[in-house]
Amino acid sequence: MKQTYFTAGPAELYPTIYQHLQTAMDEQIGSISHRSAKFRSLYQFCVEQLRQLLTIPESHGIYFTGSASEVWERIMLNCVEHESFHLINGSFSKKFCEYATAVHKYTHKQEKPFGEGFDYGEVQVPEYAELIAVTHNETSSGVQMRTVDIHKLKRSNSKKLIAVDMVSSAPFPDLDFSLIDTAFFSVQKAFGMPAGLGVWIAGDKCLEKAELLKHGDQHIGAHHNLPTLWKNFQNYETPATPNVLFIYLLGKIAQDFNRIGIETIRKETEEKARMLYKFIESHPEFSPFVKEERHRSRTVVVANTQKPSADVISKAKEAGLVVGSGYGQFKETQIRIANFPATNTEQISQLIDVLGRV
Amino acid sequence: MKQTYFTAGPAELYPTIYQHLQTAMDEQIGSISHRSAKFRSLYQFCVEQLRQLLTIPESHGIYFTGSASEVWERIMLNCVEHESFHLINGSFSKKFCEYATAVHKYTHKQEKPFGEGFDYGEVQVPEYAELIAVTHNETSSGVQMRTVDIHKLKRSNSKKLIAVDMVSSAPFPDLDFSLIDTAFFSVQKAFGMPAGLGVWIAGDKCLEKAELLKHGDQHIGAHHNLPTLWKNFQNYETPATPNVLFIYLLGKIAQDFNRIGIETIRKETEEKARMLYKFIESHPEFSPFVKEERHRSRTVVVANTQKPSADVISKAKEAGLVVGSGYGQFKETQIRIANFPATNTEQISQLIDVLGRV
Repeated sequence: MKQTYFTAGPAELYPTIYQHLQTAMDEQIGSISHRSAKFRSLYQFCVEQLRQLLTIPESHGIYFTGSASEVWERIMLNCVEHESFHLINGSFSKKFCEYATAVHKYTHKQEKPFGEGFDYGEVQVPEYAELIAVTHNETSSGVQMRTVDIHKLKRSNSKKLIAVDMVSSAPFPDLDFSLIDTAFFSVQKAFGMPAGLGVWIAGDKCLEKAELLKHGDQHIGAHHNLPTLWKNFQNYETPATPNVLFIYLLGKIAQDFNRIGIETIRKETEEKARMLYKFIESHPEFSPFVKEERHRSRTVVVANTQKPSADVISKAKEAGLVVGSGYGQFKETQIRIANFPATNTEQISQLIDVLGRV
Repeated sequence: MKQTYFTAGPAELYPTIYQHLQTAMDEQIGSISHRSAKFRSLYQFCVEQLRQLLTIPESHGIYFTGSASEVWERIMLNCVEHESFHLINGSFSKKFCEYATAVHKYTHKQEKPFGEGFDYGEVQVPEYAELIAVTHNETSSGVQMRTVDIHKLKRSNSKKLIAVDMVSSAPFPDLDFSLIDTAFFSVQKAFGMPAGLGVWIAGDKCLEKAELLKHGDQHIGAHHNLPTLWKNFQNYETPATPNVLFIYLLGKIAQDFNRIGIETIRKETEEKARMLYKFIESHPEFSPFVKEERHRSRTVVVANTQKPSADVISKAKEAGLVVGSGYGQFKETQIRIANFPATNTEQISQLIDVLGRV
């Protein structure tokens, strides 16, 4: 039986992906050279669709990696000489920070308990931090940071770079890329694609920094460093053979999103999130893990369960609906429900209906 | 019109890939969690098939990256503290060396003119080099190094690590992995898959070195460093979300290869290579670029053309056959023909027939 995945990524595939994949195979996209005009036009198409979808200015390049985790490392190598500052409120923001330590950067941290989020007013940015690392959506705890707070953080620290992990929320957050120096996401979350492609958006300030660091004591990496990516990007090429097929698919999905309109997608996401939170707030079996409404993720909803989460998950699975368990120590007491464009209002209703009868 | 790709990668897709992709979509492989039992068994299956195909012992882990270029960098970070030694006879062996320099290793080089290969007897390994970097098959020039020579090189330098780039030849070379410390390839060459997955085979000596370097002055990378890959590999997991779909496909293709038998695949490759070299040696329009028979690649055949290569390429294309141009400065005077398992004897005959009438 075909199941519907409400997991936080890999997730339900976007419904149009099957047709796009078929077209790609018919057109032999898997065989074309990454140095061909066909590839360049395919990369360009993807970039144009993403620029439209997320309002990304020309000052920012759009690059491809194997995963978003790879981008964590690349940002630290290319945009930080000595010190970075991390807002940590879950496992992935913590991992971003650990990557920085692992590549020998000095890391400053401000931490919150699991399930709590940050407001602009409480953030204290250390003087010597060169870059502020923010996780827009914590996939582990279901906490989001409001984009207005992220924008304020950059405005009041204009000399520092700001990096936004939007892995499990893009294209939902309405980030203002005239303020955001760099951001990144993976395609297996809200874009509804199979995993295997990271997308790295990086502006001219990041490139300037990388050009500077290139001649310093620490290297900026050989593979996928920003100056090399940027140089190739001028011709819509990549330094190494990329995942051509997935770049093609991403362009097509982004086009599908643009046809619907980003405002509609955001509204539908808000509406489905409202349905889910309303349900878990009112049903005795569930309660929302994130207490503050303004910090609740619209794309990954985390609910405490009265019963062991495994029981809830297996009941849902019997109905063909796959929801995720809680993360780490919350594995047995929480469920996580992805709210991505691939699942529509009716499917969310069906999930609520099934969970309501658990 | 569907074309047949004789390009050196991305290349012709292996004929069974369409069915495997269909099965993967039916089974929703694109949506399964990379922390699920289903993924672990899929990773394990792929590893078992590759172990059988390439005779890889249990001392060696099999890891996945975004590309083989990524592996160049990871080997330098994880297996070299100060000095590496590179046999350079083309653009990709040169690039491997440039990656080493870019991550601040001191590189020793022995170079050959484009189109010439190395024999064991002439290689002079510098005393302080920690690792010998060998390119089994130079995709740019169509030169191979005999595996017997690679094995001798390791035997006479047993304290040093040896790294073999088999990007555009695996599974053809009969490397003895009891001698080879690390090797790597990409799936878009002889495995006939779309690009987007690098395969990194690394033995216990590499892991030991990485564990040692981990505590040194230079970092070993945060993303895809060997100790983290190895730790996850113990449970057939990956540190970050990998390209699950392509790992599935690789396992299936490797299984198809095993059913045919690696000896048969190698014999067919030899036979098809013989046909191609015989043709370009005898036809007045063509001549083999690599003069020494023992250095001629069995998987990427490079031919000088009398006419501008663009004319030859476009004539072949009219017949639905795609061959590559020469690399770099040889773009206009050479063609490159991939000889991978995805194209059979009849297709090679057809290509020879068409080229013969140019």
